[in-house]
Amino acid sequence: MKLVAVGTVAFDEIETPFGSSGKIVGGAATYIGLSASLLTPGVGIVSVVGQDFPQEMLGFMRQRGIDLKGLEILEGEKSFFWAGRYHYDMNSRDTLATELNVLIGFNPKLPEAYRRCEYLMLGNLDPAVQNAVLDQITQRPKLVVLDTMNFWMDQSLNELLRVISRVDVITINDAEARQLSGEHSLVKAARKIMAMGPSYVVIKKGEHGALLFHAGQVFVAPALPLEDVVDPTGAGDSFAGGLIGHVAKTGDRSFRGLKQGVVVGSAIASFTCERFGTKRLENLSIDEIETRRKEFENLVEVS
Amino acid sequence: MKLVAVGTVAFDEIETPFGSSGKIVGGAATYIGLSASLLTPGVGIVSVVGQDFPQEMLGFMRQRGIDLKGLEILEGEKSFFWAGRYHYDMNSRDTLATELNVLIGFNPKLPEAYRRCEYLMLGNLDPAVQNAVLDQITQRPKLVVLDTMNFWMDQSLNELLRVISRVDVITINDAEARQLSGEHSLVKAARKIMAMGPSYVVIKKGEHGALLFHAGQVFVAPALPLEDVVDPTGAGDSFAGGLIGHVAKTGDRSFRGLKQGVVVGSAIASFTCERFGTKRLENLSIDEIETRRKEFENLVEVS
Repeated sequence: MKLVAVGTVAFDEIETPFGSSGKIVGGAATYIGLSASLLTPGVGIVSVVGQDFPQEMLGFMRQRGIDLKGLEILEGEKSFFWAGRYHYDMNSRDTLATELNVLIGFNPKLPEAYRRCEYLMLGNLDPAVQNAVLDQITQRPKLVVLDTMNFWMDQSLNELLRVISRVDVITINDAEARQLSGEHSLVKAARKIMAMGPSYVVIKKGEHGALLFHAGQVFVAPALPLEDVVDPTGAGDSFAGGLIGHVAKTGDRSFRGLKQGVVVGSAIASFTCERFGTKRLENLSIDEIETRRKEFENLVEVS
Repeated sequence: MKLVAVGTVAFDEIETPFGSSGKIVGGAATYIGLSASLLTPGVGIVSVVGQDFPQEMLGFMRQRGIDLKGLEILEGEKSFFWAGRYHYDMNSRDTLATELNVLIGFNPKLPEAYRRCEYLMLGNLDPAVQNAVLDQITQRPKLVVLDTMNFWMDQSLNELLRVISRVDVITINDAEARQLSGEHSLVKAARKIMAMGPSYVVIKKGEHGALLFHAGQVFVAPALPLEDVVDPTGAGDSFAGGLIGHVAKTGDRSFRGLKQGVVVGSAIASFTCERFGTKRLENLSIDEIETRRKEFENLVEVS
């Protein structure tokens, strides 16, 4: 397998000040897989769902070329479910319900072909599970990208620090970078986090874009100012999928290659926000991504 | 006079989580004047101070080439004073004291040479005063830039709307753009505000950079990620002074010219944040601005 994505495949129910989604498919690995598979073949997913998960979505993923050998389906059980409500700013949100269901005791077993993957995306999950995945890898991937969140900094800091020490790239938001490092300045925060292991730190700022730090260098990726944000759920996962998918496609793990990946990830994430759930990602072409990538480059063009 | 800046010349007392300034010189017109005069000769200030205002600062401004014919000095009175405390995020702040003093009843009289200025910067002030300044202008300036804030939206909306209808460029922050337009999307907000009069809308986002809207186009200016922010007071005024100062220098009022102005303004504002008050602006060279302008362009360079 070229690119393995570990994370949730689940149900979401989303309310925004402008509408509600009803119960729809979501999950970090879903967004990462749908995003990365637009850019490169050979994407496999490691996750677990219950019997209630729609066959049509699994069929759609296979059709997109996503390998599901690493996806456990537990008979008689229910998929992970999350419900949330966005505030008027469409940035912060409240969790209304979390039903772990199949995630309780989730202990992924990587299929043989996944243990020698070239690119590994550890989507947001319990860092103990992320470490358990890394323990099964038999050949150092070319690039390991980690996504995490403040919840794990509060609950499992030691386990999280261990997984951070084992990856090449970490993606977190600005508040999380400050929490993890204890530094207010994002320049200092990124430097401290790089000293924990990763050679690249990506700070996601939602509608304000993203920062990529590497050694003494920094790259600022703008966000595209959007007419309408329908639903930001999955934007961070789509971004991560686009980032690692682009690097898997080009093989360029240099600062320049990662900068390009950040722009492609930003472009795909901007599409994700245009519809509820995975709807826009399901109907997205590589030409549309390329057109939007150019729009991103034009946004910052001075002359 | 080539460029006239209207605004406060005052005292500030600033506390941050990392230090305090004591009583120092501040005020919108001070920052605008110090910033713009780095870029172009022929800058004049319209403001009012009390007898307590330090002669050394007035001397320094004159030395910088700033014309002070429009600065009233009221004997026996005290200058405007503002005290504030920044939160840990160095972005939001609480006002601890506001002493209007000489600002009460301030009714600026423009010297004859100011009434035919080529560039006019209306710094943040009561919109009634901004309108009174426009009423004294005898020849339409090439560019009028307006800065304002949420306080005037709450207190004097009609007067504010009148001044907005009379200017070419407005600079406000993202929350203010949303409040003024009633739109959450900044694209829609900017469109509504352009319909109120200005052909350019600049949305300032502090550490997240700035957006410039014009007709159907948008430009995203990054902010330079800083090691340390000592004091953001005056950053918005330094930005505005750099913006109009650059346009006054080049004479280029096209979208391209304004984009360059936004980058130059961002560069100067980033210096302002490095020290308390006007300290860094007082010791800033055009070479330093040019070097930083290039850093800003490199920040967004993908390849």
